[in-house]
Amino acid sequence: MEKISSTPKPPYYAVIFTSIKGQNLVNYAEVALHIENLVKSQPGYLGHDSASAEIGITVSYWKDLESIKAWKNQKDHSLAQVQGKSSWYRHYKVRICKVEKEYGI
Amino acid sequence: MEKISSTPKPPYYAVIFTSIKGQNLVNYAEVALHIENLVKSQPGYLGHDSASAEIGITVSYWKDLESIKAWKNQKDHSLAQVQGKSSWYRHYKVRICKVEKEYGI
Repeated sequence: MEKISSTPKPPYYAVIFTSIKGQNLVNYAEVALHIENLVKSQPGYLGHDSASAEIGITVSYWKDLESIKAWKNQKDHSLAQVQGKSSWYRHYKVRICKVEKEYGI
Repeated sequence: MEKISSTPKPPYYAVIFTSIKGQNLVNYAEVALHIENLVKSQPGYLGHDSASAEIGITVSYWKDLESIKAWKNQKDHSLAQVQGKSSWYRHYKVRICKVEKEYGI
């Protein structure tokens, strides 16, 4: 069963990746799975949540901006970003945020 | 066709609402629609994106923390939060964030 990411007491960082896919999804599924496995071992990674319907939203959580930058520049992830930009996504936005407050049940 | 929210140059604020529904969804659909229509007329509202699969993620964007607080305390939204907590959601998290950087295609 899916669970929402458990994150530490703020402050920490979130990367909100919002996307709309295009028609050319060659390699998408296998690269996405590889990247999802890879992110979990990155320094500073705190968790991620993902939901995909007409648009896709993935939010990943990070200890600090340095960890986010290192993940952006990680080799396989960089290649995936190039493919994403040139092929898979018709439209996307990346928003880098400082989480200041968290509550819930 | 769905479109990703267009937001101004950072800084601005994001509220990430991540949720897993329970079994009791009485009134959920009509209240959710009402709240989605209502949020668009709130002072400081900049847009929102939503995707729902096994988990649901809605991210709303705001001018400042005061606008977020006023929306949290808006009458119909407050009632919806009570119903959400007591009935609709098995689990949810609200994260209030300052968006520091944005890029995309």
